[in-house]
Amino acid sequence: MSLFITFEGPDGSGKSTQIWRTAEFLRGLGHEVLLTREPGGTSIGDQIRDIVHDVANTDMCSPAEVLLYSASRAQLVHQVILPHLKTGGVVVCDRYADSTFAYQGYGRGMDKEALRLITQFATQQLKPDLTIYLDLDPAEGLKRKQNASSAGEGEWNRMDQLALDFHRRVRSGYLEMARSEPDRWLVIDAMDSIEAVSQAICQRLEHYLAKTPQSHV
Amino acid sequence: MSLFITFEGPDGSGKSTQIWRTAEFLRGLGHEVLLTREPGGTSIGDQIRDIVHDVANTDMCSPAEVLLYSASRAQLVHQVILPHLKTGGVVVCDRYADSTFAYQGYGRGMDKEALRLITQFATQQLKPDLTIYLDLDPAEGLKRKQNASSAGEGEWNRMDQLALDFHRRVRSGYLEMARSEPDRWLVIDAMDSIEAVSQAICQRLEHYLAKTPQSHV
Repeated sequence: MSLFITFEGPDGSGKSTQIWRTAEFLRGLGHEVLLTREPGGTSIGDQIRDIVHDVANTDMCSPAEVLLYSASRAQLVHQVILPHLKTGGVVVCDRYADSTFAYQGYGRGMDKEALRLITQFATQQLKPDLTIYLDLDPAEGLKRKQNASSAGEGEWNRMDQLALDFHRRVRSGYLEMARSEPDRWLVIDAMDSIEAVSQAICQRLEHYLAKTPQSHV
Repeated sequence: MSLFITFEGPDGSGKSTQIWRTAEFLRGLGHEVLLTREPGGTSIGDQIRDIVHDVANTDMCSPAEVLLYSASRAQLVHQVILPHLKTGGVVVCDRYADSTFAYQGYGRGMDKEALRLITQFATQQLKPDLTIYLDLDPAEGLKRKQNASSAGEGEWNRMDQLALDFHRRVRSGYLEMARSEPDRWLVIDAMDSIEAVSQAICQRLEHYLAKTPQSHV
């Protein structure tokens, strides 16, 4: 049975750990699981990832950024995700189109209708069956990052405040998207223990697999 | 007076020569002329150009290609074209959005409405004031290329036929776009002499400059 699962959530939310655990769980049930990520996941996507992540490219405008992420996504869907789903496999992807809506749409205030049209074009209208959002209070995330980088010099500056406001809009966006499509989304408190988060994900997957017609297996 | 001129036309149509002559002509009239090109024209655009032109990237899907060209265009408009137009200068660009409609839309048969929406997003709706199309019969272009590469081995194969069909659709597309917006387009027979082509372009530019209100100078 083909199944397309995406993970969303900020750095420090434990996303990578939960992706690996989810893959192991599904492999244990006999599924062919393919792990991938955005941006990247293909040779062309990795070349695009290098451009969007290069710190020298600070003058990149927002539309170019959206189009580059979408180009990487288009190649990933075409070359990796759709072919694997067609063989009946499971794809687990670290970030997908919801990241564009959350960060560029809600975070940066870009026109969501334009983002929707570009996303449809890039993804051939492929939507995830399930999206796991690891929810973390941005202030907590920033605190962790500050503790890690400045080791005690916890001075609060204007950039931190801007970053915090941005990440609050991103989080609100994720929660709004999750509310509007509850069948697709699972929101989990990332402050819970690794075990508790993992258990919640596996329960939801078992529920999803149980209600899906066995003839598709 | 700000003025945005684009050049379209296949390889071998003499586009580069005419772009230089046009720039020289306008500089002679006292305009600040900026020459640029697509894809590229910015540091980020050049990085994107490397990806789309890399022969190793043969597995690039059409949507990814469109999105990469559009990302380069977005950065060029934002960083180079709009700022120069705002100072009252002239921008002459080697290829622009019409190339996407001609090659991906008419040539590859991609949905033109989707291309239109992506182009609007990438360009902030900036359209050229004038577009010069150097029109060349694709069979002539292919003949020149074959003569250059195979030096006499003029065997006609299936790939040549496919290429010829593709370039015929591209050409029809350009001519259709030119017919639908005659005020913006100037179609010139690229088989004419360099002098004749150059003269036709300068005449059109003089006509355009004469009818434009002098208060904008």
